[in-house]
Amino acid sequence: MNERICVEAAVGGITAPKGIRASGVACGIKPSGLDLALIAPDRSAAAAAVFTTNRAQAAPVLLSREHLAASGGRAAAILVNSGCANACTGEGGWDVARDAAAEVSAQVGCRPQDVLVASTGVIGVALDGRKVAQGIQAAHAALHAAGHADAARAIMTTDPFPKERAARVDTPAGSFTVGGMAKGSGMIDPRMATMIAVLATDAQVESSLLQDALREVVDLTFNAITVDGECSTNDCVFLLATGASGVTVDGASRPALVQGLLAVCQPLARDIVRGGEGATKLMTVAVTGAASADEAKRAARTIANSPLCKTAVHGGDPNWGRFVAAAGRAGVAFDLQRAGVWFGSIELFRHGRPHDDRASEAAHYLRRPEIDIRVDLGTGGRGEALVWTCDLSAEYVRINAEYRT
Amino acid sequence: MNERICVEAAVGGITAPKGIRASGVACGIKPSGLDLALIAPDRSAAAAAVFTTNRAQAAPVLLSREHLAASGGRAAAILVNSGCANACTGEGGWDVARDAAAEVSAQVGCRPQDVLVASTGVIGVALDGRKVAQGIQAAHAALHAAGHADAARAIMTTDPFPKERAARVDTPAGSFTVGGMAKGSGMIDPRMATMIAVLATDAQVESSLLQDALREVVDLTFNAITVDGECSTNDCVFLLATGASGVTVDGASRPALVQGLLAVCQPLARDIVRGGEGATKLMTVAVTGAASADEAKRAARTIANSPLCKTAVHGGDPNWGRFVAAAGRAGVAFDLQRAGVWFGSIELFRHGRPHDDRASEAAHYLRRPEIDIRVDLGTGGRGEALVWTCDLSAEYVRINAEYRT
Repeated sequence: MNERICVEAAVGGITAPKGIRASGVACGIKPSGLDLALIAPDRSAAAAAVFTTNRAQAAPVLLSREHLAASGGRAAAILVNSGCANACTGEGGWDVARDAAAEVSAQVGCRPQDVLVASTGVIGVALDGRKVAQGIQAAHAALHAAGHADAARAIMTTDPFPKERAARVDTPAGSFTVGGMAKGSGMIDPRMATMIAVLATDAQVESSLLQDALREVVDLTFNAITVDGECSTNDCVFLLATGASGVTVDGASRPALVQGLLAVCQPLARDIVRGGEGATKLMTVAVTGAASADEAKRAARTIANSPLCKTAVHGGDPNWGRFVAAAGRAGVAFDLQRAGVWFGSIELFRHGRPHDDRASEAAHYLRRPEIDIRVDLGTGGRGEALVWTCDLSAEYVRINAEYRT
Repeated sequence: MNERICVEAAVGGITAPKGIRASGVACGIKPSGLDLALIAPDRSAAAAAVFTTNRAQAAPVLLSREHLAASGGRAAAILVNSGCANACTGEGGWDVARDAAAEVSAQVGCRPQDVLVASTGVIGVALDGRKVAQGIQAAHAALHAAGHADAARAIMTTDPFPKERAARVDTPAGSFTVGGMAKGSGMIDPRMATMIAVLATDAQVESSLLQDALREVVDLTFNAITVDGECSTNDCVFLLATGASGVTVDGASRPALVQGLLAVCQPLARDIVRGGEGATKLMTVAVTGAASADEAKRAARTIANSPLCKTAVHGGDPNWGRFVAAAGRAGVAFDLQRAGVWFGSIELFRHGRPHDDRASEAAHYLRRPEIDIRVDLGTGGRGEALVWTCDLSAEYVRINAEYRT
C-alpha cells in the first residue's frame, strides 16, 4: 500500500459512522443514572468480537459467543447494561441474558442470534429481567443517530468520565468513519480480550477480515493497558461494519481499516487507564533491549502491575530501583550490568550504576499527569513493547474496599 | 520414622540454639535505631542458604553465594544490615560488601569466605562502608548468647514488629533446638527464595542434608506467603547448624529437623504477612480441587495477589465474585459449574450459583483479624495449596508512596 491514507479525529462516538443509531436509558439496575445502552445498525451488519480469556465467563459473554457463531458474524443490535455483571448467577442468569436478547430481537425485528449482549458491574448478583425488558423498550424508542453520548454514559460503572472517540479515514477509494465507546475502570488487565468496548465503522467489510483486523488492533491497544492486573469475567469488544459509507475494505485496503480502528481504540484505551480507579497519572511503560517482543511485553506488564512502581509514581518518588527489581523478577532475560532506566529523557540507572545526581530533576518530571518510563533489559536484543497503566493510590483501595457496601 | 518426635515452642529466637551468639547495634545507616545484626556460632558451623530468584541480585546476595560455594557449606558469621539494600550500586557496592566480610572475618577470626552477608532497605543507594566497619566492631563486642532480641530489631525496615521464634525438638536420640528471626515487610513474594531470615539449630547436620531440609521447609513457609507480589533483589534465608546439642541429624532423623524448622519458619512466615505493609488482616487462601498441586499453588498465589480480593477483605465485603474472577484468570483448569467459594465454613458460591443469604454472616466473619478463604476449582482433581497473605489498605499505598521521600 503506497496509496495515501489520511486519518483524522472526528466527533460523534459510536454513532459517528453512518447507519448506526444508539441510545442510553435508566432502567433501575443502578440506584441512579443511565444503565442500559442499545446500539443498532439500520440493517444487519458484519460483526466481530473479542472476549475475555477468564475461565469464569459471565452468561452474556457465553451467549454473545454463541450468537456470533450462529449468525455467521452478523449482528443487528448490541445491548449493554451496567450496574450488574450477570456473572456467576447460575441458570437464572442465562435466562435473563436470553430473554433480553429475545426482547431486543422483537423490538428491532431480527433473529435472536443477531443480538449481542454484554453486562458490567458487580459479580454474583442477579440481573433483574423485568427492569431490563422495560429498559429495552425505552432504549429502542430512544434510538437516535446522535445517541452516542447517552450510550457512552449508560455503560459506565466506577468510570470517572465517559469514553468515546471517532475518526474519519480518507482513502483513494473514498472515505469512511470509525467510532466507538468504552468503559473501564477496575479489573483491567485484558490479556487477549478486554473491558467492554463497542466499535462501529460504516465501511463495508467482510466478517472474517473484520475479526482479523479487530484482533490486531485489540492487541496493540486494549490488550496493552492495565489498571490492576485483574482480568474480568465480562470483558468484550464488539465491532460492527454497516457498509453505509459505500466504501468497501478488502485485503488490499485493510491497512486503512486498521489505521482507523487504531485512531479510535488507542485513545479509548488510554482513556480507560487515565480513568482507572483512583488514578492520578497516566504512565507509559516502554521496555527495550529484550530478547524478544514477547519478553518485552512480559517485563512491561510486570512493571505496569507492580504495586511498588505504581505507588512510587503516585508519590512522585523517582525510585528507579523498584523498576529494576520488577524487571528482574519478570521471568525474562535481564542483564543488570547493561540495563538502564529512564524517566522521560532523564537517565537514572545505567551499566549497573545509579545517576542519583538527576533525582531531583526526575522528581520534578514525575509531577506531570502523563509520564514515560523506559527500562532497557540490557540483553542487546531488539524486543520492544509499550504498556499503558496508571498509578496506585489510596483512592483505589477506598473505591474497592467500599464498592459493594 | 515411627519414633516419637515432639516439638514445642521455645523462647530465645536466633540465640535459642546452643553455640549461637548474636547482637544488634546502631551504626547510622538508618536515621535512628538498630541497623546492624551479627550472628556468630562459637565455631564454624554447617551452613545452608536460599537466595532470591530475581535476576537483579544485590551485591551481598552474589557475595554470599560465592562464599557459601567457596567454604563448602560452612559459615562462622552472618552480618545483616537494614536501611540500605546495597543493590544496583555498581562496583562500589561490591567493594563495600567484600570489605564488610573481611572486617567480620578479622574480628571473628575466620576466613572471609566463612562470612555471609545480607542487606535490606532502599535499592540504588550506596552503603557507607565506614559506618559498617565501625558497626562491625561494636557488634562483635556486643555478641551475646542472649542477643536475639537486638539482632531481630536490627534487621527491621518498615516491619511494625520484630519477628523471632524458637522450637525445641525431642527425639529418641536426644533434644535439639531450632531458632530464627526474619524481616518483611514489602516486596514480599518470594518464589524459590524469600525476604531475609536467619535460622540456626544446635543439631549436628551435614551441609547437604541441611541445604535439602531448608529448601523443603522454605517452599512450605516463606515461599507460600505474599504481601504484594513483589520479589526483591535481596531476599535470602540462612541456616546454621552448630552441633552444640550433641545430637546428630542424619537421613533417618531428617523428619525431626524438618519438623523443628517448620515450627519456627511457619510462624515467622505468618508474622511477616501479619506485619505486611499496611496489613490489618492475615488471610489464609486454600485452593482445592485443582488438576495438580502446582496449579493449586498458581491459583492460590493469583488470588493472594489480587488487589480486588485484598481490598474486599480489607473493607469487610464478602465479595466472593472477585475470588471466582481471580481463580478464573489464573491460567489453570477451572470449572465454573462445579467450583465453590467458602469464607471460613460459610459457603457463598457453589455449582454455578451464589448463596447470598449467607452474605451478612460472611461480612461478620470478615471482621476477624485472621481469615480463612477456600476456593475449589471444580476440576475434581486432588491438587491443593495454601498461601498466606494480608489485605491491601490505603496505608500500604501511603507507606510506599512516601518510603524514600
